Amino acid sequence: MRNEFSLIEYYFQQHQRTRDDVLIGIGDDGAVTRVQPQHDLVTVTDTMVAGVHFDDTTPARAIGHKAVAVNLSDLAAMGAEPCWISLALTLPEADEQWLQEFSAGLHEICQYYGCSLIGGDTTRGPLTVTITAQGQVPEGQALTRKGAMPGDWLYVSGPLGDAGLALDITQQRYPEAGPHLQKLIERLHYPSPRVALGQSLRGVANACIDVSDGLLADLGHILTSSQVGAEIELDKLPLSLAMTETLSQQQAYAKALTAGDDYELCFTVAEHHRGKLETLTAHLKNKPVCIGRIKKSQQATVSFKLEGEDYPLTLEQPGFNHFLDDAGATS
Amino acid sequence: MRNEFSLIEYYFQQHQRTRDDVLIGIGDDGAVTRVQPQHDLVTVTDTMVAGVHFDDTTPARAIGHKAVAVNLSDLAAMGAEPCWISLALTLPEADEQWLQEFSAGLHEICQYYGCSLIGGDTTRGPLTVTITAQGQVPEGQALTRKGAMPGDWLYVSGPLGDAGLALDITQQRYPEAGPHLQKLIERLHYPSPRVALGQSLRGVANACIDVSDGLLADLGHILTSSQVGAEIELDKLPLSLAMTETLSQQQAYAKALTAGDDYELCFTVAEHHRGKLETLTAHLKNKPVCIGRIKKSQQATVSFKLEGEDYPLTLEQPGFNHFLDDAGATS
Repeated sequence: MRNEFSLIEYYFQQHQRTRDDVLIGIGDDGAVTRVQPQHDLVTVTDTMVAGVHFDDTTPARAIGHKAVAVNLSDLAAMGAEPCWISLALTLPEADEQWLQEFSAGLHEICQYYGCSLIGGDTTRGPLTVTITAQGQVPEGQALTRKGAMPGDWLYVSGPLGDAGLALDITQQRYPEAGPHLQKLIERLHYPSPRVALGQSLRGVANACIDVSDGLLADLGHILTSSQVGAEIELDKLPLSLAMTETLSQQQAYAKALTAGDDYELCFTVAEHHRGKLETLTAHLKNKPVCIGRIKKSQQATVSFKLEGEDYPLTLEQPGFNHFLDDAGATS
Repeated sequence: MRNEFSLIEYYFQQHQRTRDDVLIGIGDDGAVTRVQPQHDLVTVTDTMVAGVHFDDTTPARAIGHKAVAVNLSDLAAMGAEPCWISLALTLPEADEQWLQEFSAGLHEICQYYGCSLIGGDTTRGPLTVTITAQGQVPEGQALTRKGAMPGDWLYVSGPLGDAGLALDITQQRYPEAGPHLQKLIERLHYPSPRVALGQSLRGVANACIDVSDGLLADLGHILTSSQVGAEIELDKLPLSLAMTETLSQQQAYAKALTAGDDYELCFTVAEHHRGKLETLTAHLKNKPVCIGRIKKSQQATVSFKLEGEDYPLTLEQPGFNHFLDDAGATS
């Protein structure tokens, strides 16, 4: 029935460079690791299913990369240092080339971020990849969704909507985006979790989440957990050149607000910590962008401004969906 | 794409009685927990796939129970105290009754063993359940497969082969087992991980594994890792009444040696620790049974005795498979 012994050991143990805090890795009933003194353990889990999260055209290397990346993105949103990865891989058959490429993608990103694959399970069945990632954070310093305060500045870590636009293009919705295709597909298939930024935000951000389901949806979790509202300045939303050259302004805003899979961080910072944030992120290639502010509100509502003027667009009004329909973003 | 927010929160958060060491549970990007000082973290992962590990006739409650049980069994084999569970649940549709029963099965066993569900991911796709369980063990005291020494006594924690026999019966191979059916099906669907025993074995057992793939297969991992061989006294193999009343003696031995899914522990104990083992397990309802001894050997071979006489049956000889075929156990 179970065969942890064969596939995992063969494809995943060989390239392994193991962290010093892994006492027992792949090959026993469980892995044994050591959390640093005065640190909390952070655990995240994400599943990717064939036909839902990727399709036949997705390279196996990208699936291996992304399955790890989405988990490291969750760890980053908690302010945690990524440490250990467990892989549950369900496969219809042991396709050697696929496994070689998948494990290469998985190992590249693990190596880049310094985390070790410590175990897992391989089973026969429809292609499904579940990764559980563990990280650590100094005691009591984990970032959460619930600390946003009225007056906090609202930030995102980088351009939004690119992954969603890439998906649209592969589905032939915007064939005119040809010149940017390669770059956008990279953003969709090989997202970069904001691991360093997440750790820098400890003690600086009041609330943090990663944008996996779209800015409005994920910001909505911060607002609901923190019992506040927000105001977004649409013209401050960071957009890539590929985005602005492919879509109209309205379409681009809608895409940036609603498309998922970018794995940028969205976080809030109190006025008195803005200087600290700027110092901490001065060395980063992609600096966080301030896109608005947290407001007092009971209903977790978001309001919008465009060029300094109120822009009558709220999550509740029927026109919002309409707006999204126009932008082709409700898929 | 991802919707950790809906199903998991609704069905799994409500009954939750959370351990004190869970600082942040379900509902943020990750869970935050605290490992006790001077303890190591033990992590295990197991996947159950519909059509492979269970079928349409398996009650949802049993799937929820067993998905946790197989993981706790791995933790027990490492000598770890079970603490936290993450659930990755892939479902074709959100069937309310199924979810209710599945989550009831999952919660019952979590509650019994004192572990908390701390997070997970729900996705749409072919029914697959992956659980990652985390436990803790005093520093450096995790049990492994590799410490068995020549002269060690070989133990199993309880009757072997019942789950395999149950599977045969449901597949109509032994219709005469009718009177024992209910009990056997319970063993197959609701295995009891040997959590207390596993923790008692710290500092007592030299090597330990859980019997998920069959005694010979799993003992084989101990022998390979420890570079030793073993001798099994067939007439000491613990067999249930259901087993001895349903199968011939030969069939019963074959089943006990090769059938998986019993989730008993198999472990080795040095001569000078036998007394300690007896004291430690005196209070257990099911006491471990000594079934043989570890031998010096380069080849991880197993030899057998029956009523004190050598019984010419080794893993390598062709007759072994034949023997199993006769017993109907090669499925």
